[in-house]
Amino acid sequence: MRAPDLDEIDHARLMSRHAAMATIGATGRGGVNRQALTAADCDARALVLEWARARGFACSTDAIGNLFIRRNGRRRDVAPVLTGSHLDTQPTGGNFDGVFGVLAALEVLDSLEDRALETQRPVELVVWTNEEGCRFQPATMGSAVFAGEIPLEVALQTVDREGTSVRAALEDMMHRLGELPKRADHSGFAYVEAHIEQGPLLEEAHKAIGIVRGIQGLRQLSVHVSGEEAHAGTTPIRQRKDALVDAMALVNELKRLTTDPDDVLRFTIGRFDVAPGSPNTVPSGVVFSIDLRHPSDDVLSEVGDRILSVCRSWEGICTVGVAEHLHSHPVEFNNAIARAAAASATARGYPFMEMMSGATHDAKYVANVCPTGMIFVPCKNGISHSESEMAKGADLIAGANVIFDIVTHLANLQGGI
Amino acid sequence: MRAPDLDEIDHARLMSRHAAMATIGATGRGGVNRQALTAADCDARALVLEWARARGFACSTDAIGNLFIRRNGRRRDVAPVLTGSHLDTQPTGGNFDGVFGVLAALEVLDSLEDRALETQRPVELVVWTNEEGCRFQPATMGSAVFAGEIPLEVALQTVDREGTSVRAALEDMMHRLGELPKRADHSGFAYVEAHIEQGPLLEEAHKAIGIVRGIQGLRQLSVHVSGEEAHAGTTPIRQRKDALVDAMALVNELKRLTTDPDDVLRFTIGRFDVAPGSPNTVPSGVVFSIDLRHPSDDVLSEVGDRILSVCRSWEGICTVGVAEHLHSHPVEFNNAIARAAAASATARGYPFMEMMSGATHDAKYVANVCPTGMIFVPCKNGISHSESEMAKGADLIAGANVIFDIVTHLANLQGGI
Repeated sequence: MRAPDLDEIDHARLMSRHAAMATIGATGRGGVNRQALTAADCDARALVLEWARARGFACSTDAIGNLFIRRNGRRRDVAPVLTGSHLDTQPTGGNFDGVFGVLAALEVLDSLEDRALETQRPVELVVWTNEEGCRFQPATMGSAVFAGEIPLEVALQTVDREGTSVRAALEDMMHRLGELPKRADHSGFAYVEAHIEQGPLLEEAHKAIGIVRGIQGLRQLSVHVSGEEAHAGTTPIRQRKDALVDAMALVNELKRLTTDPDDVLRFTIGRFDVAPGSPNTVPSGVVFSIDLRHPSDDVLSEVGDRILSVCRSWEGICTVGVAEHLHSHPVEFNNAIARAAAASATARGYPFMEMMSGATHDAKYVANVCPTGMIFVPCKNGISHSESEMAKGADLIAGANVIFDIVTHLANLQGGI
Repeated sequence: MRAPDLDEIDHARLMSRHAAMATIGATGRGGVNRQALTAADCDARALVLEWARARGFACSTDAIGNLFIRRNGRRRDVAPVLTGSHLDTQPTGGNFDGVFGVLAALEVLDSLEDRALETQRPVELVVWTNEEGCRFQPATMGSAVFAGEIPLEVALQTVDREGTSVRAALEDMMHRLGELPKRADHSGFAYVEAHIEQGPLLEEAHKAIGIVRGIQGLRQLSVHVSGEEAHAGTTPIRQRKDALVDAMALVNELKRLTTDPDDVLRFTIGRFDVAPGSPNTVPSGVVFSIDLRHPSDDVLSEVGDRILSVCRSWEGICTVGVAEHLHSHPVEFNNAIARAAAASATARGYPFMEMMSGATHDAKYVANVCPTGMIFVPCKNGISHSESEMAKGADLIAGANVIFDIVTHLANLQGGI
């Protein structure tokens, strides 16, 4: 690996670009609303393209609107090293989720260009389309199409609440951005992504860099408990089919099942809707969600199956139905990329730790296409998807430097990874 | 007491009036939407007035729109025996809640008139304004104003969701109904009300008549649990302030507190709102209602205070707030009226039982003004406030006959009750 302490990304440029991005879709309350394929998303892409073109980098797109910004390497016949993230946000999003990985990647290209450093392989910044999945579902749509996990046509036909399709929104955006050449293929030698952690572990451990070893698996279920509406004043307890009482008994049982002394298993009930929701009416129905995550596929399968079985065999006063909406297996990232990240952080003196990603990222799908890795930087109190999302400048610079080191290392590798 | 088996109310007339009322505000799904002081409520009152005027009964109203329909007695200087209920319904109401008590009362007047029976005291049918309290809060508004429990001005200033005041809606209704004389005072010698049970006890016990000994007390509270929103994937359990987890622990504790082997205490959580309600977000807040009822004021006070104390001293991971919105003490009805009801049911061979009312009724407030009693008739599966509300014709006839007996007994009493 090349000596990582020789080159530094341009601190001032990175921070001023962050500040510029924070104005695009600004909500006026410190955050941004830059949902996928909206005018604000388009403006953010236009600004990145402007920065890229100013340095002479080649810009292209693909059929789902992922942007590619390329700095050529010595060899033209080889697959590029990819690095990037996304520019879209939640409706009340912050200034770091996604955009940091894009600006760190642009810093890699710019810093190579600043120093006229030649790499063996091309380096490409990727801006993935619709990572957040709030306007159009599912999330990580651009990377899923890139990796062949979702058929292009299915993605293009997805509509938002107003009935606008991805296809129409994409055509509109491409029209506004001006014609871009289509990227020829889906090739990638490797992919690395920088992101804020969106959790509290790095801050808690006083680490600047998290080396992400993979993304934990996720199962999403919904449970329906059906009882009978009744008058709260006139109906004896023995006569009730109180869906809330039964749902709580079921949840108590599920919580016993999912208690993990190591605090690795994550069991969350985020949605819990009680009908009809009137103070003097015994509830007739409850619908609740289960979000279950674990880095081990075996644990996730076993615990998730046990939850399904408890729900299906529930013998309460109400009837219980359960449906599984998603079973997403854990993903392991590439070891060599993790080693390169550790080498960089060590050489630069950044405190680091290995960790799993609790949230999903575009890197999850890209990992099916080429060797992939991620690094995290801390965010304040672990808060993200919020206008109060915050990350320290020093951590962003450290993260960008590590990405620079990993990318230049990979781009100069003689053989495979 | 006069021999109750001598007179029968007119079965066909009672049933055909029920059928006629079912068309006013009909939803087309078997129920009615006849919310207080709407055009449908006005139409129902107009029909009752039409029936009353056809028999020459004197009609009057008071400042809150309660209707009084009077059949004079031999003595003019004495307070009347009152009987009645309400014509307004829930938005998806049924054909018996309220209207049965009004039509049974009208049958008393008509049956006396049919037979030219003279009573010592006048008998007055009362139609109370806004018993249901869905368009304008609170419920039992008309009887509360009659009994001086709510100042008239406060009631008149109440507005619905569209900003229409009770005063404006009442003026509009009175204009449509034509001018009615104002009833001079709030006098009443006694009040009896027939109503469907709105619970399953009579049906379960195969009784035609419930002799209501009182209305149980009610305390209504709301509990707020405040935690912190967090990402379901990235936040370890130990770091969470999961409002749902804490709320469920609190509810488990409250359920232990309120378990009653005799099944008399009624503890209901009807509203349970979880925010933000997203499957992959740890809940930051829960608001839930508590509806607590018991016939004994002591038990209600003790258990309610214990609930308040558990909430106030809760030491969980979240903060808990509790507010009490209503502490309505139990009401005991008049013993002599209950005895008259029992004598009637016995003489007529109707199976009957004594019971408490789980729901509140206009009789609750009227009991503060004069000796008061109620009888219940069964309704199918205890269902009310529903378009599928159902009561058997034979039970309605039995109930009307018992009301006839009680009213004529009271109206002919020589001394006090």
